[in-house]
Amino acid sequence: MTPFTTSRRVEFGDTDMAGIVHFANFFRYMEAAETDFLRSRGMTVSWADGDSRLGFPRVSTSCDFRKPAKFEDVLSITVTVEKVGTKSLSYRFDFADQDGNEIAVGRVTSVFCRSGDHGRKFESVPIPPEIRAKLEM
Amino acid sequence: MTPFTTSRRVEFGDTDMAGIVHFANFFRYMEAAETDFLRSRGMTVSWADGDSRLGFPRVSTSCDFRKPAKFEDVLSITVTVEKVGTKSLSYRFDFADQDGNEIAVGRVTSVFCRSGDHGRKFESVPIPPEIRAKLEM
Amino acid sequence: MTPFTTSRRVEFGDTDMAGIVHFANFFRYMEAAETDFLRSRGMTVSWADGDSRLGFPRVSTSCDFRKPAKFEDVLSITVTVEKVGTKSLSYRFDFADQDGNEIAVGRVTSVFCRSGDHGRKFESVPIPPEIRAKLEM
Amino acid sequence: MTPFTTSRRVEFGDTDMAGIVHFANFFRYMEAAETDFLRSRGMTVSWADGDSRLGFPRVSTSCDFRKPAKFEDVLSITVTVEKVGTKSLSYRFDFADQDGNEIAVGRVTSVFCRSGDHGRKFESVPIPPEIRAKLEM
Repeated sequence: MTPFTTSRRVEFGDTDMAGIVHFANFFRYMEAAETDFLRSRGMTVSWADGDSRLGFPRVSTSCDFRKPAKFEDVLSITVTVEKVGTKSLSYRFDFADQDGNEIAVGRVTSVFCRSGDHGRKFESVPIPPEIRAKLEM
Repeated sequence: MTPFTTSRRVEFGDTDMAGIVHFANFFRYMEAAETDFLRSRGMTVSWADGDSRLGFPRVSTSCDFRKPAKFEDVLSITVTVEKVGTKSLSYRFDFADQDGNEIAVGRVTSVFCRSGDHGRKFESVPIPPEIRAKLEM
Repeated sequence: MTPFTTSRRVEFGDTDMAGIVHFANFFRYMEAAETDFLRSRGMTVSWADGDSRLGFPRVSTSCDFRKPAKFEDVLSITVTVEKVGTKSLSYRFDFADQDGNEIAVGRVTSVFCRSGDHGRKFESVPIPPEIRAKLEM
Repeated sequence: MTPFTTSRRVEFGDTDMAGIVHFANFFRYMEAAETDFLRSRGMTVSWADGDSRLGFPRVSTSCDFRKPAKFEDVLSITVTVEKVGTKSLSYRFDFADQDGNEIAVGRVTSVFCRSGDHGRKFESVPIPPEIRAKLEM
């Protein structure tokens, strides 16, 4: 599967009093990179389907931090689809700064779900062939 | 109307690289204080009502910052209902730190709304008498 | 003074359970737009100056919300410098969506400050002529 | 080592348009629980030491999500110190809701560091005996 790269500039509000990007924000960066990736394949991360929603809620995620990111750094984020299972989808995200330094490596595993009743019901469902085809391009 | 006071300890992730609470977080603090206040009156900020939601989306808000708040400060937040209109509701929030220093003063005006279609439709509606009675206690 | 326009796509994590952009995030959007504006003028929002930092901490801010913003909306944000005082600086931010709908109007007033001792000291200082000149272009 | 339990009520602003707590917020919850734990042992997560800072920046973190958390859920978070190495520290965080449902299990590994120059320098250092003693209680 073809990797996809997007970029993002660190905002002042992304930092904490240690002077670096707060670690929880890497998960927001991953999600936004995933959305960019899905958009590039003609998809999105959550969409209405009649009265319910289809989408990819996360079942697990992790991040290894190699080097702090700073305010105004322009991070490149490479999104790689590591696995498309029957119902699940695993991504890897490689973060580097403008000087090519490795900043962090994150992973997200999502399960394709139909949710309803305003978030009170979630049911995992097989990834439909047309979505699988777009993910495996 | 009787003021209501709640408190909140500043978290590490609430700060920014200037070493102080990031200004946008005061609006999160206000909302949580409002929820505490509404809970103390047997209400909440947004609830399901059949297929739609009722609640108080914001129409305007402001905050004046007097003194920075720091990591581990325990802020007291006094919630005052300044006005209950036909459809709208205005709050004032007074922030002080553990030493009694005035930190900030915020305001929020909300409009009572029925929303539907997963956030795609919003309609302002009169505040029902039983909610008004609880707000004016 | 010449207005400056930037844009930003609403991320999934910017929304709340009402299905719209959480109101506190408009203040993060304003700050990022301000940083973009300052960068376009060769400046930034906070920078080291020896052992201390110079920058523009906020003294007051407000936002009027006209219409909800949604996931994947591409918002245009026009930054206007409304006033450059001796020590203070006031901005207006006009948010519109991709269909030209007015979404929100925000304001921020900042004071030029020298801060030191890791955020424990803040002192307002006159805006230097070379910064004033860039702001008034 | 004795586990430590704290609790936290889900705020409206913690949710996303799927109607559940946004996954990145679990990392903020972990950090706040860690701070509560450290405070219960007479410590904190980051502190000034002359011109530099001492603290525990994260080197890796993960979270497995079992069941969504909702607005106004009161989560219990049990903090367990899994390992105190020469320079590193590993925690486990078990999240449950008010009905005893397992919500998530997170892990954080931090390295004891001296940082200086406003976040531009980080150096890992051995955990001092008096801090180790407090962590291993």
